[in-house]
This record gives sequence, C-alpha cells and structure tokens, in this order.
Amino acid sequence: MRVMGIDPGLRNLGWGVIDVAGSRLSHVANGICHSAPGEGVGDLAARLLSLHSQLTEVIRQYAPDAAAVENTFVNKDAVATLKLGQARGIALLVPAQFGLVVGEYAPNAVKKTVVGVGHAAKAQIDHMVRIHLPGVEINGPDAADALAIAICHSHHVQSAGRLNAALKRAAG
Amino acid sequence: MRVMGIDPGLRNLGWGVIDVAGSRLSHVANGICHSAPGEGVGDLAARLLSLHSQLTEVIRQYAPDAAAVENTFVNKDAVATLKLGQARGIALLVPAQFGLVVGEYAPNAVKKTVVGVGHAAKAQIDHMVRIHLPGVEINGPDAADALAIAICHSHHVQSAGRLNAALKRAAG
Repeated sequence: MRVMGIDPGLRNLGWGVIDVAGSRLSHVANGICHSAPGEGVGDLAARLLSLHSQLTEVIRQYAPDAAAVENTFVNKDAVATLKLGQARGIALLVPAQFGLVVGEYAPNAVKKTVVGVGHAAKAQIDHMVRIHLPGVEINGPDAADALAIAICHSHHVQSAGRLNAALKRAAG
Repeated sequence: MRVMGIDPGLRNLGWGVIDVAGSRLSHVANGICHSAPGEGVGDLAARLLSLHSQLTEVIRQYAPDAAAVENTFVNKDAVATLKLGQARGIALLVPAQFGLVVGEYAPNAVKKTVVGVGHAAKAQIDHMVRIHLPGVEINGPDAADALAIAICHSHHVQSAGRLNAALKRAAG
C-alpha cells in the first residue's frame, strides 16, 4: 500500500509518500509545494490554484492508495488560522478528487505514533522519520512532517486492518 | 458583465449572480451549496469535494466574467475559523480554475457599499439587495450576502473602469 502524508500551509505545503508492506516501510518521495505571496486582486485565489495544480501533479505521479492531512490550527491569530484553513481545504480536496479517503491526525497524535511522545520537537520528528525510512533525503521540515503523517497513517490503517481481521476470525 | 458573489461556509456556501450593464444591475440567480456533516474518516474531505462539485456546476451553468468572495473570519473560535478557511479555500479556488480573477471584500466593505453603513444588520442587507435587484427571490441569508458581495464587486469594478478611462483621457 502506498500512503501520502500532507502538512498543509499556504506558502509551503509539505508532502511525503511511503510504501507499506506489512510492518516494513520504505520511502518513495517527498517535497514541498510552494506558493509565494504576490500582490493585487485575485492573488490569494491564484496561490490556491497553484497549490491545487502542484498537488494534483504529485498525486498523479505517485498514485497513493491512501492519504492523511495534519489537523492543526493556529490558536493565537485568526488571520493565520484562516490562511492555514484555506491551504488545508486544498490539501483535503485534491486527494478526495482522486477518490482517496483522507485521514486526519492532530499533531500530537502524529508525534506520539512516530516519536513515542506527544510533545516532540521538530528535530526529534526528523530523527525518527530517518530511522523509520533509512536513507531518506528530506526536503525541509514541512516534508519531514508530511512523511511523519504518512507513517502515522500507515500505523493506524494497519491497526484497523488487524482489528478487522481479528473481528472476522472471532465472528467466523 | 456578469458578476458572481460567494459567501463561504462549510455547511452553507451562498452564491449569487448578477448582470451589470452600466449602472443597471439585474438578478440572474442565487442559491446555496450545502454540505451536511457526516461521520468517519474522510468526512471533511468528502464535504469539501461536494462543495467543489456544486460550485463548479453553478459557475459552468451561469458563466460569470468576474467573482468575489467575502473576506470574513471568526475571531473567537480557532476551530470555527479553520473550518471557514477550508470552505473559503474552495470558494476562491473554483472561480480561479475557470480563469476568473477573484476579488475579496471585508464584510464591512460589502455593507458600506450596499447599505451605506459598515455595521448593517442582516435585515438591512436583505432589504437593500431587494432594492438593487427588484423582484429577486432570495434563497436565504447566505444567498442574500452573496448577492450583496456581487453588487459590491460590480461597484468597485465600475469605479476602477471609470478611473482607468479618466486616466487614459488625461494621458491622451
């Protein structure tokens, strides 16, 4: 199974794709979709359109079977939260347009799965992503977060799969 | 010129289309794109996908030349602001996918243009939309707001047009 994680942001939207075979994970690709702020009427819509096009191209290229997006929000600043929400709307929409079910995880759930504690620092996430995916080259912290989300989703999907299998055995 | 206004919301996304000929406005259509909350993994992405499909169909049907979206945010509650941002991302994206330049107006700017004061009540907006667009049947308050945004955008586009014409005359 191929899993994509997305760390949404308006300026930098991180993505990471991994392959999952049993408990074995392997890195496929990771990167950042950029949209620099411009000026004038229509700028925000143009940036969202650019993110949409870039993310569509990534999904077309790597054809994941499942996707997950970080469910974060900025608590202090409503303007920043609205901006993030707009980018997050695109991050959720694009995989859904490819027929994927899109999981959502709170940042602490991702950290707990990948690092083992809910309040891990960026450096710890980066470190653990490298241990999960030996030899990976990471294109910056947003891509590292996206790979962590993909790892988190692969764990949850596998747990759900094992649960379903156990329930079937118990029922049969 | 045909102008579309959009009042974004995750559950109810209002839209309104008007025709503008000189200073004469006429109503074309208005309505609401709904997405009811569901349950389970992937629900939010599915709702955004549904809003995207509905809004795409509306723009395909009415073929506006310009679009504008209300630039509002909920200040008190970060979760509500993030939700609104996600819907707003779709509201900005879809007209941009049709090649339209998407204007943005703060709620107070819309009220000031349509009602004459920045702190108008919902009932005043509804009343003034009916005066601007005689005979209009309005499909609820979100559609009324969307028509108000379209009216606001038509005024600003016309003002910009007059300014450009005056500058050309002054230069020529």
